[in-house]
Amino acid sequence: MILTVTLNTALDITYRVRSLRPHTSHRVSDVVERPGGKGVNVARVLAALGHEVTVTGFAGGPTGQVLRERLTGTPGVVDALVPVHGATRRTIAVVDELCGDTTQLNEPGPQITPAEWGAFLDRYQELLAGVSAVALCGSLPPGVPVGAYASLVRSARALGVPVLLDTSGEPLRRGVAARPDVIKPNADELAELTGSHEPLRATQDARRRGAHAVVASLGAEGLLAVTPEGRWRATPPARLHGNPTGAGDSAVAGLLSGLADHLPWADRLTRAVALSAATVRSTTAGDFDRTAYEELLDRVAVSGEFSAA
Amino acid sequence: MILTVTLNTALDITYRVRSLRPHTSHRVSDVVERPGGKGVNVARVLAALGHEVTVTGFAGGPTGQVLRERLTGTPGVVDALVPVHGATRRTIAVVDELCGDTTQLNEPGPQITPAEWGAFLDRYQELLAGVSAVALCGSLPPGVPVGAYASLVRSARALGVPVLLDTSGEPLRRGVAARPDVIKPNADELAELTGSHEPLRATQDARRRGAHAVVASLGAEGLLAVTPEGRWRATPPARLHGNPTGAGDSAVAGLLSGLADHLPWADRLTRAVALSAATVRSTTAGDFDRTAYEELLDRVAVSGEFSAA
Repeated sequence: MILTVTLNTALDITYRVRSLRPHTSHRVSDVVERPGGKGVNVARVLAALGHEVTVTGFAGGPTGQVLRERLTGTPGVVDALVPVHGATRRTIAVVDELCGDTTQLNEPGPQITPAEWGAFLDRYQELLAGVSAVALCGSLPPGVPVGAYASLVRSARALGVPVLLDTSGEPLRRGVAARPDVIKPNADELAELTGSHEPLRATQDARRRGAHAVVASLGAEGLLAVTPEGRWRATPPARLHGNPTGAGDSAVAGLLSGLADHLPWADRLTRAVALSAATVRSTTAGDFDRTAYEELLDRVAVSGEFSAA
Repeated sequence: MILTVTLNTALDITYRVRSLRPHTSHRVSDVVERPGGKGVNVARVLAALGHEVTVTGFAGGPTGQVLRERLTGTPGVVDALVPVHGATRRTIAVVDELCGDTTQLNEPGPQITPAEWGAFLDRYQELLAGVSAVALCGSLPPGVPVGAYASLVRSARALGVPVLLDTSGEPLRRGVAARPDVIKPNADELAELTGSHEPLRATQDARRRGAHAVVASLGAEGLLAVTPEGRWRATPPARLHGNPTGAGDSAVAGLLSGLADHLPWADRLTRAVALSAATVRSTTAGDFDRTAYEELLDRVAVSGEFSAA
């Protein structure tokens, strides 16, 4: 069983409009709703790969209820969300049919009370006992302490559960100092953490700050990983066309899946890059194209740059 | 008791963002939700004026549940909505804090089944028995026959209940032919109905098509009314600055309120223009500023243009 934590879950809503023009009125031609938030997306991909996954974090209000109903309908996913008084946020992705681009509107998330945060910590501790790995994903809703991920990393490590952290800003900075097994920043998050825009230098610096392994996602250039066992680059076979929504979450799922299956780093990275690329190629935002994924597994290029970092 | 019908109710959501830029991501700083759809807005204004109002139409799904909970919390408003399987639509108003303008995204509304439409017709017939006036407001959700308003107008008239129709397009065209007591088109709706962009000519033509009285809302120029008793223009004291959202619904509420209080036409129009102007001036979209309303009542100019149309 893999555990994913999404403190700021979301009901992801996609609207299609003919052309988004600010300060005018639009008829939405199509509405799609699904459970969201990074850890929920990671769980969906893991379940599709055949893993058993438990989802925890917060859910509340009518939007939280819809999210939980949809999650219950996802095979392989166990709902261990903690109920809160506030309403789970919505995110609205407005897809422009003429140009294909997306405009994103993200609600801030509910206020979490100290009692709710305490209830989550108890639940998390219980859940950790039975899992092979845990992923801590996404932003913090209002009211959750900025050092939240640092304490969740420490609890996991105290029980010997491998922990992957995928967040940004101050929660990432504090979380890294608690020595997570893996972080997976993108280029912007890495630059914000380290002050360096040079990926290799920044990745090495992030390790010095506490992360055992750093897997930097560099968009079309794939992944750069610096780990205790060595350093790798994993790249997709060609420049990809499609929608990058969820590609980062699919990469996290690939890393966790490979970890749970005890694969060596090169194979974990291959899985992560193939899933990420198959997500960009999918016609549904955030889903991965299974046929593309299986083809890509043989076509991802992995080069070990030296044997000991 | 006044009855308002809103077949395509909505959960109106207002988002504030710093500046809306297509194809980028936005943090929403503030989220406000409230019951919406034209007839629901009319009911809220009527209730604020001290009338007892019953709201009917359709509500369903989690959004419908939120709408009904909020409606129950509105003093003076009785919820007689008919439950449906589909989910009540959302409308999203994105307010740009830098320029003050609003971008509107409107979901299409749930599919109404023939059985649900039948259940509504039964409920409407029961409700008509006890009311002093009825307003039929807004668009039709998918599945409702385009001649819906024509049959609702005929049922009201058969029972001697005065009926106001506020819609557009083909539902308006068919509804007018069923001889409603009042229609309240804006300039665009009137032009679409009659083919004429000249307000007086178009208003007279709309009467010939079947409406007993036509009250055309001409934005900052106020109202032009052509009725069996005469013809009037009612204008606010000065060009208004503010948000016109809901100004038309407030005008409908003013007309109904004056009708229910057995006021002569000139006074109904004064009430409608003052409410409409006080809505434009309000800081909350769709609400009216009560102090402004009371001041405006003395300052609306009404001129009867001749005594028999």
